[in-house]
Amino acid sequence: MSVVSPHCELPAEVAARLKRNPVGLVPAIAQDITSGRVLMMAWMNDESLALTLSTGKATYWSRSRQELWIKGETSGHTQHVREVSIDCDGDTILLLVDQVGGACHTGAESCFDAGGTLPMSVHEGEDE
Amino acid sequence: MSVVSPHCELPAEVAARLKRNPVGLVPAIAQDITSGRVLMMAWMNDESLALTLSTGKATYWSRSRQELWIKGETSGHTQHVREVSIDCDGDTILLLVDQVGGACHTGAESCFDAGGTLPMSVHEGEDE
Repeated sequence: MSVVSPHCELPAEVAARLKRNPVGLVPAIAQDITSGRVLMMAWMNDESLALTLSTGKATYWSRSRQELWIKGETSGHTQHVREVSIDCDGDTILLLVDQVGGACHTGAESCFDAGGTLPMSVHEGEDE
Repeated sequence: MSVVSPHCELPAEVAARLKRNPVGLVPAIAQDITSGRVLMMAWMNDESLALTLSTGKATYWSRSRQELWIKGETSGHTQHVREVSIDCDGDTILLLVDQVGGACHTGAESCFDAGGTLPMSVHEGEDE
């Protein structure tokens, strides 16, 4: 899955703000701009962020396949990116997206639907 | 900032599902349960997740200080955790929280307000 683009370099001011982990990646959270649901978290390197900013298609770095991954390129479940934010520390990206189909490879709307909730042992109101 | 708790072990079924990074951490996203805004991303080890589940107070692992960090313990800007989800791969946590005060250490509501948006070079509608 090779990606060829004339715009695959990150603007210098963005590159300067980005704090990458030791293997050059930052976590990127995708949130549905309509429902507000958090859909998934994946990883980006400089090139995938640059492609996301220049193409408007959410593009991640697949750690398992060690290659760029345009979300939905295979499944058709693309993410049209409407806004990209960076956090105060420059080490996390937030994408607001129009999600086509389920964001999760299981078919679920959100990867957190697919995983489900964890049991809390605290009683309601206990922490008020 | 030591934390003493009688409930600091992760339930076995949760521990078995969790996929930690090489230093034993998973990213945890905090989302405001009322506004739906993504507030911040931080890291958890097993103990911080166990404490979060048993106390209902969002507790992270500070990578810079190498210690447990109960969100808001110093600032008063606590996160009362209403729901904890895990993603399909077991490598990311999502917290739905009632946030007291700003979630960001800058005072902003969200760390992504503090960081701001990144410029997109794609033209509106270009990716439709």
